[in-house]
Amino acid sequence: MKRTLGTCYYPEHWPRDIWEEDAARMVASGLTWVRIGEFAWKRIEPEPDVFDWGWLDDAIEVLGAAGLKIILGTPTATPPRWMLDRHPDMLAVDAQGHPRKFGSRRHYCFSHDGYRQDCRRIVTHLADRYGRNPHIAAWQTDNEYGCHDTILSWSDAARRAFRDWLAQRYQSTEALNRAWGNVFWSMEYDSFDEIDLPNLTVTEPNPAHVQAFRRFSSDQVVRFNRVQTEILRARTDAPLLHNYMGRETGFDHFDVGADFDIATWDSYPLGFLEDRVGATPERQRRYARQGDPDFQAFHHDLYRAVGHGRWWVIEQQPGPVNWAPYNPSPLPGMVRLWTWEAFAHGAEAVCYFRWRQAPFAQEQLHSGLLRPDSEAAPGLAEARQVADELLDAPEVAPLQATVALVFDYDALWSWEVQPQGRGLSGFDLLLDTYRGLRRLGISVDILPPSADFDGYRAILAPGLVRMSDALKERLASLGAALLLGPRSAARDADFTIPVPLPPALPGLDVTVSRLETLRPDMPVPLTGGGHAKHWLEELEGTAETVLATETGAPVAMRRGATTYLGAWLDEAAMIRFVADWLAEAGVETMTLPEDIRIRDTATERFWFNHGPETVETEVGPLPPAGVLRQPL
Amino acid sequence: MKRTLGTCYYPEHWPRDIWEEDAARMVASGLTWVRIGEFAWKRIEPEPDVFDWGWLDDAIEVLGAAGLKIILGTPTATPPRWMLDRHPDMLAVDAQGHPRKFGSRRHYCFSHDGYRQDCRRIVTHLADRYGRNPHIAAWQTDNEYGCHDTILSWSDAARRAFRDWLAQRYQSTEALNRAWGNVFWSMEYDSFDEIDLPNLTVTEPNPAHVQAFRRFSSDQVVRFNRVQTEILRARTDAPLLHNYMGRETGFDHFDVGADFDIATWDSYPLGFLEDRVGATPERQRRYARQGDPDFQAFHHDLYRAVGHGRWWVIEQQPGPVNWAPYNPSPLPGMVRLWTWEAFAHGAEAVCYFRWRQAPFAQEQLHSGLLRPDSEAAPGLAEARQVADELLDAPEVAPLQATVALVFDYDALWSWEVQPQGRGLSGFDLLLDTYRGLRRLGISVDILPPSADFDGYRAILAPGLVRMSDALKERLASLGAALLLGPRSAARDADFTIPVPLPPALPGLDVTVSRLETLRPDMPVPLTGGGHAKHWLEELEGTAETVLATETGAPVAMRRGATTYLGAWLDEAAMIRFVADWLAEAGVETMTLPEDIRIRDTATERFWFNHGPETVETEVGPLPPAGVLRQPL
Amino acid sequence: MKRTLGTCYYPEHWPRDIWEEDAARMVASGLTWVRIGEFAWKRIEPEPDVFDWGWLDDAIEVLGAAGLKIILGTPTATPPRWMLDRHPDMLAVDAQGHPRKFGSRRHYCFSHDGYRQDCRRIVTHLADRYGRNPHIAAWQTDNEYGCHDTILSWSDAARRAFRDWLAQRYQSTEALNRAWGNVFWSMEYDSFDEIDLPNLTVTEPNPAHVQAFRRFSSDQVVRFNRVQTEILRARTDAPLLHNYMGRETGFDHFDVGADFDIATWDSYPLGFLEDRVGATPERQRRYARQGDPDFQAFHHDLYRAVGHGRWWVIEQQPGPVNWAPYNPSPLPGMVRLWTWEAFAHGAEAVCYFRWRQAPFAQEQLHSGLLRPDSEAAPGLAEARQVADELLDAPEVAPLQATVALVFDYDALWSWEVQPQGRGLSGFDLLLDTYRGLRRLGISVDILPPSADFDGYRAILAPGLVRMSDALKERLASLGAALLLGPRSAARDADFTIPVPLPPALPGLDVTVSRLETLRPDMPVPLTGGGHAKHWLEELEGTAETVLATETGAPVAMRRGATTYLGAWLDEAAMIRFVADWLAEAGVETMTLPEDIRIRDTATERFWFNHGPETVETEVGPLPPAGVLRQPL
Ligand SMILES: [Zn+2]
Ligand SMILES: [Zn+2]
Ligand SMILES: [Zn+2]
Repeated sequence: MKRTLGTCYYPEHWPRDIWEEDAARMVASGLTWVRIGEFAWKRIEPEPDVFDWGWLDDAIEVLGAAGLKIILGTPTATPPRWMLDRHPDMLAVDAQGHPRKFGSRRHYCFSHDGYRQDCRRIVTHLADRYGRNPHIAAWQTDNEYGCHDTILSWSDAARRAFRDWLAQRYQSTEALNRAWGNVFWSMEYDSFDEIDLPNLTVTEPNPAHVQAFRRFSSDQVVRFNRVQTEILRARTDAPLLHNYMGRETGFDHFDVGADFDIATWDSYPLGFLEDRVGATPERQRRYARQGDPDFQAFHHDLYRAVGHGRWWVIEQQPGPVNWAPYNPSPLPGMVRLWTWEAFAHGAEAVCYFRWRQAPFAQEQLHSGLLRPDSEAAPGLAEARQVADELLDAPEVAPLQATVALVFDYDALWSWEVQPQGRGLSGFDLLLDTYRGLRRLGISVDILPPSADFDGYRAILAPGLVRMSDALKERLASLGAALLLGPRSAARDADFTIPVPLPPALPGLDVTVSRLETLRPDMPVPLTGGGHAKHWLEELEGTAETVLATETGAPVAMRRGATTYLGAWLDEAAMIRFVADWLAEAGVETMTLPEDIRIRDTATERFWFNHGPETVETEVGPLPPAGVLRQPL
Repeated sequence: MKRTLGTCYYPEHWPRDIWEEDAARMVASGLTWVRIGEFAWKRIEPEPDVFDWGWLDDAIEVLGAAGLKIILGTPTATPPRWMLDRHPDMLAVDAQGHPRKFGSRRHYCFSHDGYRQDCRRIVTHLADRYGRNPHIAAWQTDNEYGCHDTILSWSDAARRAFRDWLAQRYQSTEALNRAWGNVFWSMEYDSFDEIDLPNLTVTEPNPAHVQAFRRFSSDQVVRFNRVQTEILRARTDAPLLHNYMGRETGFDHFDVGADFDIATWDSYPLGFLEDRVGATPERQRRYARQGDPDFQAFHHDLYRAVGHGRWWVIEQQPGPVNWAPYNPSPLPGMVRLWTWEAFAHGAEAVCYFRWRQAPFAQEQLHSGLLRPDSEAAPGLAEARQVADELLDAPEVAPLQATVALVFDYDALWSWEVQPQGRGLSGFDLLLDTYRGLRRLGISVDILPPSADFDGYRAILAPGLVRMSDALKERLASLGAALLLGPRSAARDADFTIPVPLPPALPGLDVTVSRLETLRPDMPVPLTGGGHAKHWLEELEGTAETVLATETGAPVAMRRGATTYLGAWLDEAAMIRFVADWLAEAGVETMTLPEDIRIRDTATERFWFNHGPETVETEVGPLPPAGVLRQPL
Repeated sequence: MKRTLGTCYYPEHWPRDIWEEDAARMVASGLTWVRIGEFAWKRIEPEPDVFDWGWLDDAIEVLGAAGLKIILGTPTATPPRWMLDRHPDMLAVDAQGHPRKFGSRRHYCFSHDGYRQDCRRIVTHLADRYGRNPHIAAWQTDNEYGCHDTILSWSDAARRAFRDWLAQRYQSTEALNRAWGNVFWSMEYDSFDEIDLPNLTVTEPNPAHVQAFRRFSSDQVVRFNRVQTEILRARTDAPLLHNYMGRETGFDHFDVGADFDIATWDSYPLGFLEDRVGATPERQRRYARQGDPDFQAFHHDLYRAVGHGRWWVIEQQPGPVNWAPYNPSPLPGMVRLWTWEAFAHGAEAVCYFRWRQAPFAQEQLHSGLLRPDSEAAPGLAEARQVADELLDAPEVAPLQATVALVFDYDALWSWEVQPQGRGLSGFDLLLDTYRGLRRLGISVDILPPSADFDGYRAILAPGLVRMSDALKERLASLGAALLLGPRSAARDADFTIPVPLPPALPGLDVTVSRLETLRPDMPVPLTGGGHAKHWLEELEGTAETVLATETGAPVAMRRGATTYLGAWLDEAAMIRFVADWLAEAGVETMTLPEDIRIRDTATERFWFNHGPETVETEVGPLPPAGVLRQPL
């Protein structure tokens, strides 16, 4: 499959008389894809059950006729104002109990039955009309599930649905009380109708209660989305997809992704660096115009798994955005670098958001490929350059990596429910681990615990709070080098500490006898350099100590192929420890300069310079924003 | 007109038998004015429609007989508790939806019709009784509109009034939808009754929506106040005034000021330095006992414009206050310096708040000229010293400055609605610019965009987000040197980016092709020294580049008398760039030491030392808190 | 009386078949006491008026038969879920108006009459059943009053009760208006039913209003608790106690303590260091594994007074906890040190919380003496070591100190109501003063203002905002050296500044003519070294200046035995000034190293090393966590 480019377009925003010219310019710029429709409900159905299809028929025809392939979005992220008259209680409610009102987007509660019925209705109409349209080459449902903190809703609808979900899962309150340990603090329930959402409690609620609410909330997204994919499946053969966000962990993307053909995500490297990467101020300063060197790659690898191998960047930042704390311009060349980086990680397509900067409403300072006056913005030339470079580039050429990193949404919720130290996050632990691997030149596959791990030489599963016995057995039986911990298998399915104590891994005599969290100013020095930070476990057992504190306490212990690491390592310790561990596993590493990253496909090794200065590498000097394709 | 002094007095707080002595001491201290009555509603009307005028008649007679001129306040900032029984829904509501309750002051929503009727009633009674009283020499309406964040109310009353205001302004929802770009995110309305206040939305509301709400909220203040001034106008010939606050930008003071004869403001240099100047910690430390060297002067110049040339400080800090994060004592001499500084900027009168420190209630740690035990507080001797110095000082002698700075409330709302970078504020940009001018020894006139700019040699209008074509033409036709930008003319009347792109100035080929906001740790170095910070625009066009980044990007461009500056400059760059620009405009400058400021009247040049150490100046050494009057 | 140890146990959490073994292990570990029952309401009364006593009878018998003495708790901190069906409005309400829901603990409003009746009912049942049980050796009411910010409730029940309380106290609104100075800002009331709780006001409410609400809220705790103690008194001869918290100042513990025989408190040195000591980051870092060197001792001395000389630590941290921002492990030996430190301050017993770490619910990461798998956790060996050491240690041997520090809850509320500088706290002032005394090797008695001060050589009463004339006279008549100020006697009984101005002490001509609060970066240097920080008063009068600023302003003044200190001193100034003052009072001091503290009983001097390194002392080298008992 050829790698392709595209963009996001809103015909309803622009005069009818420039659509043809826009379409022609897209094609001339080397773009293949155009995504439309995902916010247009009000224009499609101006009044309840009154439809205006003309403009959309027309837009599809104009774009299609120009040779563009269309991704059509369902408009359920932006119900019109009249929908609130039908369902006054459809709004999500914040944790303080305030309804989250109309006036922007995503103003709905996933648990509201009436709204879900109206979504079923509009999607059916859309699919009936365009399911077999030859220009529609893919369908997107809704938009950015979870964006603006919209997974958790504390509404009446959510409360009712949560009670049902609990009743289904536990069957009796006796079972629930036992599973959650509600004997503690006299929290036992006699009826599912007594159970409230876990907000506004006097002090923290039972973590089992919160974890259940997190799982329920994720399931509500799956249920909400499946209504749409089922309708679409019955009416179209085009692939289905959704545009996921960066660091959105409120729902299980593997679960939602099971109903899709392709995973796509919205990549905003500069905005994300400012508002969600969690980098130190120094790192934020260094990469302010380039974005974090690992954050995008991490999501590329994650969503490749979510998409069962098929994935896109469907929204690529093309210049400054409007929504981050600070919104600088990218370094010249970064739009190209980001695009090639996606392809290096296996993307089939990269689409820029958006075609033309809107002069009105919320995103008026969000760059497009065109300025509001239709002149080319700087991003367009870089997109065009990639389009040219793609002409003689290899096709999408996936290559299974030798190293796998296990990513589990349920575990991330556990970290959020019980961080034990201020701000500790399982996501950050995964990202730190991934960064360490990347600094060693490793191409990584990110996989869910349910994956088939055949063929990997080395598997890392840090912070995997819940591990079934079956998973433990399956991993141990692979023969691959296995690096678990910290916090692995620390809770059972209902958020209780198992006995025997964690990690209770087959064949490895290691017990976490106690754990502590550390102030940022008290890292614990390790023998051989580097430190444990944030999280440190006390390990007991007969396994061999392969890493220890300067005072001699074991930090990592090993037997055979399985190593348990009982700490969160800082960057120096991570690189050193993982390098040694990989060497033992027979995986070759190279320590890359701070700003350089590489990524292998089946045919090429890509070199990227994420720093602001030229760097000498073994393939020669690489300028800022430099991309080098080394044939393999 | 002679410059005069005064104080604020609450006869209802003190035993009747000390009023005569208080009045006599005021006169003996050199005070001319006494302000009374503005919080006394409950004592005037203890029960609905039951009035007790005796004590107020008496107080007016005692003070007047002693020779004092009285400013009488309408008591509408403090409705009695019984008012809530009449109008349970009169309270303002905070942005989270919680009513802002009785128990302090300003507990009303400007949009509540019933409360406004009761204000009409009490002011009519007051004006009928005292409108022709010879001792009443001025009237104040209400107290500190906007203080305690009281302009924006999210109440039902405000919602209803906002819908009416929108209907009046747009006539149809089609027009409103078009103007706001509501097609974006399916936000189009079919009825004005569908439009809510822009709070509690899922993500940010449409900036056009918020800007409209800001304008509406300002208009509500004008409407509320005008009820009172119309009643007073019909019943008195005394001048009318209101006491504005420092850095209160929630309503358009020029609009409200149109109904007044005099502008007055409440100047608390130490409190403001701690809670609203926005200075760096280092600057806060240096000026902790003196106040910011430019903040008061800026407001003096601003409110001189609001008052059409006539203005006072009606509340002058006389010692430590009670309401700032920290409340240090002023450096000895600062009360005198602040008073003279006001006179240097053209004040007709300076009144100290308050006569005697109240030992009870909210302000019990707010200094007065007297202590609670009626002994003199330190401020009294400094007031007395000024009174003596005034005996042979020149009269108020206004002098039009050569340099004008344009101040527009609507533009400040635009910055708040869409800062694009964390905490960026149009007010701060104006204050930084003003500070730069003052460091160069310039006396400045601050003017609204509607002003007549005749006679100015140089006009600066930074951050003027909205500029009508008429304004552009008018400014260009003046012949004066014009310094615009950044962000000038960046939005049309409905918060949309105009095409052709901004600034689209007549005769100046400059286009802002893109803009970025900068992290505080990434200032961009400029050729010749200094940096751009916070806000940086990319400029295109054929105009001459007169300032550039070290990498060669144009930062300021000029043709003829008009210069466009596409950046927010730091202090070093500001002083250097503005000095050069003023030199070209034929305006002489002198670079003053950090702590020294000067101000010219028609007869004198005033020198002030705001620092904690003696400074050598061209007029000799100036001690801390030093004031030197140099005849011109 | 022998010093004893104990633990907290929840038989309802564990299978019946391990109770005997648990009991036997407790006894074998040297424990005497076991506390049970305080969260078990739901298990005792599963449905309204349906009781299940069997398990509790059994548990008491098992533990008692093993030789343990039982403290039985009333379960009123954790009403079962069905209680909400009886009293839907029983929940406390937060300051924003949101009910604080079921799902953790302490979910009740102290003012709710219906809930208080149900507490009366359950306590009566408990006391009837177990009041004469020979194994029940003490009773605890409820659990940690005030924990999780539960003293102040903004509920309807609280509003009604507050109005009654005000009516009782003031009898007429005229009296209340006069006392509070409600003439200010027209805040006068005509009926007690007009008075609301002082939350959600537009700007700050009248401090007299808030202080009244604080006093009311404390009285509600006393009233709530007394219902229980009265029932118990009638049915048991065992001592009654409550477990107080660290830095819980929301209610007057002396008032509540009047109804108890013993005071106990819950001592979590590491958790408290992270979340409430208020130490600098450097100090937090240094003592992260040991806890603040003075915070526990301060509470030991405080609760000794609350308990009329009889006090315990009823919950002692035995390892990492789960609820602080960071939760590190204690340095080895600290559990022993904390235990001995309590005994050194006169504790009769120290109980560890908890026996076995619970694998479920909110505290699953809170250490116990046992791990969840019943293996010994590190704390158990240290407890066992203390048990052994106690065998030949002296009995509890109280000794009146020579120096007293006055602690007044009402004064702390005044500081909170009116800090005048950001974050200033009367508690911190007391702790700083206490720390200064301890650095000088002083053993301190902490006493309420109502105490009999006979026999003390030196009495300190910093920040005692309200002092009656009787108290002034009583203190002055003692002959002891008296150190008052800052802020002493600064307000009358209704939060008004008295005239003559404070402190108005008999025989001491000192007047606070003005005061200021200081930014943290502007401490004022004093002659002889050290600084005034936070709070600085200007003093007038004829008394002798014994401490002054470098610019010569008096900071402390003295006549005879009475000294008034008008500033908050930093540690250097505090140590120097207090040392000199104590020397004059004939009290010997020794300046201890930073980490070392001593404490004298009648028979021994205890030496403790709170630092992470060995320290040389006059009794030899003391290792980290070292405890040395020097016979006297
Ligand atoms: Zn008269
Ligand atoms: Zn709320
Ligand atoms: Zn027995």
